[in-house]
Amino acid sequence: MIRQVNLLVKDMPHQWYNIIPDLPEPLPAPLDPSDGPSRIKNLPNLLIGECLKQEFSQESWIDIPDELLQIYAQAGRPRPLFRALGLEKKLDTPARLYYKGEFFSPTGSHKVNTALAQCYYAKKEGFEQVTTETGAGLWGTALSYASALNGLKCRVFWVRSVYNWKADRRHFMQFLGAEVHASPSPMTKCGKELYDKNPNHDGSLGIAISEGLEDAGRDPKTVYCLGSVLNHVLMHQTIIGLEAKKQFEVFDDYPDMVISCFGGGSNFGGFAIPFIGDVLTRAKKTKFIASQSKAGPNLQGEYRYDFADYAELTPMLKMYTLGHKTDMHPIYGDGLRYHGASPIISLLRNKGYIDTVAYPNDEKHVFKQAQLFTETEGWLPAPESAYSVACAIDEAIKCKEAGEKKVIAFNVSGHGFLDMYAYKTVLGLK
Amino acid sequence: MIRQVNLLVKDMPHQWYNIIPDLPEPLPAPLDPSDGPSRIKNLPNLLIGECLKQEFSQESWIDIPDELLQIYAQAGRPRPLFRALGLEKKLDTPARLYYKGEFFSPTGSHKVNTALAQCYYAKKEGFEQVTTETGAGLWGTALSYASALNGLKCRVFWVRSVYNWKADRRHFMQFLGAEVHASPSPMTKCGKELYDKNPNHDGSLGIAISEGLEDAGRDPKTVYCLGSVLNHVLMHQTIIGLEAKKQFEVFDDYPDMVISCFGGGSNFGGFAIPFIGDVLTRAKKTKFIASQSKAGPNLQGEYRYDFADYAELTPMLKMYTLGHKTDMHPIYGDGLRYHGASPIISLLRNKGYIDTVAYPNDEKHVFKQAQLFTETEGWLPAPESAYSVACAIDEAIKCKEAGEKKVIAFNVSGHGFLDMYAYKTVLGLK
Repeated sequence: MIRQVNLLVKDMPHQWYNIIPDLPEPLPAPLDPSDGPSRIKNLPNLLIGECLKQEFSQESWIDIPDELLQIYAQAGRPRPLFRALGLEKKLDTPARLYYKGEFFSPTGSHKVNTALAQCYYAKKEGFEQVTTETGAGLWGTALSYASALNGLKCRVFWVRSVYNWKADRRHFMQFLGAEVHASPSPMTKCGKELYDKNPNHDGSLGIAISEGLEDAGRDPKTVYCLGSVLNHVLMHQTIIGLEAKKQFEVFDDYPDMVISCFGGGSNFGGFAIPFIGDVLTRAKKTKFIASQSKAGPNLQGEYRYDFADYAELTPMLKMYTLGHKTDMHPIYGDGLRYHGASPIISLLRNKGYIDTVAYPNDEKHVFKQAQLFTETEGWLPAPESAYSVACAIDEAIKCKEAGEKKVIAFNVSGHGFLDMYAYKTVLGLK
Repeated sequence: MIRQVNLLVKDMPHQWYNIIPDLPEPLPAPLDPSDGPSRIKNLPNLLIGECLKQEFSQESWIDIPDELLQIYAQAGRPRPLFRALGLEKKLDTPARLYYKGEFFSPTGSHKVNTALAQCYYAKKEGFEQVTTETGAGLWGTALSYASALNGLKCRVFWVRSVYNWKADRRHFMQFLGAEVHASPSPMTKCGKELYDKNPNHDGSLGIAISEGLEDAGRDPKTVYCLGSVLNHVLMHQTIIGLEAKKQFEVFDDYPDMVISCFGGGSNFGGFAIPFIGDVLTRAKKTKFIASQSKAGPNLQGEYRYDFADYAELTPMLKMYTLGHKTDMHPIYGDGLRYHGASPIISLLRNKGYIDTVAYPNDEKHVFKQAQLFTETEGWLPAPESAYSVACAIDEAIKCKEAGEKKVIAFNVSGHGFLDMYAYKTVLGLK
């Protein structure tokens, strides 16, 4: 029985898949709010030119530049697809379980796939510094890494509630040469307002995005990078699912169900979108489940226009949202704690292609299932990826109860080596 | 320019290479000391039968069982060989640098290669528990993982000076279901003697080995596993170098110099031995450098018979040694802090095939070079692997000074995600 399929470097996909032209209806365009300056007209001052072009592209396939393909190889791509035989045996399920190993990443998560692309384009366009926000810290680490490789400076605004407990990840970013600030910080106008009221303010991804945008807006050599939600970010991530599809061919199998954890949508989108493409053409009938936390179940919110950030510096996006000023309960899987969902995934959810589950804030069940995965498969998932693992295990158990031989594919978007404290605390390790 | 070469799972080596029959002279046999019970006759009560057989095998090639090959694939093998183009550019060196990515391991180090083999055989032979020592914690984690996958219980005696600062790694072992004790512990006779005198005793690998051996000796269902030094351990690790040789063929290149860090010799041996084989047959003239710490420069000690453990429970091995009761200065790269060197590597060193360098105890230079590697190549080495990286960089700089286009291959035996505290402390990160 084959337990793992890899691809040779030369067989790595050479194009990203842009699902926009294949969507069941046109993607609603970003809008400006009724008052204040035009956020849309300001986008070229904030974002990388090539990324902005990709954001609105109607081409289904976009070439990955050769030099970037080489950098992907340097970052260890392609990454393996595993058959979870050990887990299947333990669960005694008739389901066939497969998982993608994005944990083979230099910084520990899938975020490098877009960080490398964004820094590659930023460097080409003459920028000297990138600036961004980060929630769980995975995106901030990935951008620190990609900027180091490209000789760019990097500034990270990091949600304070997470900054405080992830010292190792903070040191890793600094080791890579990045400048890291707890957010809200006194470095920006919008941050300072909240910081002055409460210097221990927990922060939120929405606030940190505002800080990054404001920081980029005041220096023409600095450009803002975003790690999720936007169309081009999800497109960069499709390399995950495109590789997985090639690997499923080698396994001679195809998923009935595709599962991943969901915060803003980048790892979910990157893994699922190439399979969703097959469903849109009616070639396949695969089901899709976004695994979320009750702390931020954005796909269970309202489908409407909302800002992507707290301070309303972004255009309004048509998306599932909990409201851009909503307070959310801190959890260890902090990457899942964001008020809004990617517009692409939101539209697909609205059309009935995507289901969502949300797990309780105490994270006990999720981390227990992650432990079962590690004991049987060996890999330690990131707290966020644990939601992907837990949902897949829960579905595999349903298959056992129903006697169904479903094929379940899930993405393990990152490793948890920098997050042991979360497992220790929730599971009570000594 | 190719930056990475991987192999398909089916092209993974199917045999380990046993260098013993090819050595320039017969490997000196283990000896009993002049007094006390026979340690040699006691070996079958302590070690796994198949491993003991392999320890003395005169076959050059030993089949890796099919089931174990599948488990290697589950553990992500084969692992890539990278060309360090980013680092070369930064150093402006004419040397060509290549590194093997053993950091793609479920527990973060090469130790899984033998842990999986030992637990596979232990399970087949009916044992219910494995017991061991660990220094840096890499071996203890690997055995915790391999025992979990094989449904075995696992007990780990961990050198206290390291146990105390590596909380995350301790929690990872516990997450995997292992029982972990700081050594010297009150659990064993030899441990208790030292513990009673000083419950904060720093410990040493030699003491921890004694504890593991004593623990195994008192329960017929428990078997002792060792993570380095012994012939069969190095043989299991040759899969590293055997893969690398296949990958060098794809690169159409071959190393003039092979470098790795050196504690007991398992990652160094595993990486270098297949290349040393080519030198012994005079097919190649490659140089070999073991990168060590001044805290435990065992290859610069005396070549003589010595015990492998503190309490003299093992047979005496002919090896380079600093003396089995020697106190050694604690360092963050604790895996390099052991008094004795693998008998195979010792013989080869004695015959002039292997050079050694030893870096200062403050580890500043070593960790600075590791940082340069991470900034240019993206991968975070374990503190031990940082010695391999530093030595390779130092040699590449010499090549620049001499204008020599040498091909330098080094093994990055593990990642440092669980060891950020070491980098933070030595480099003064905030």
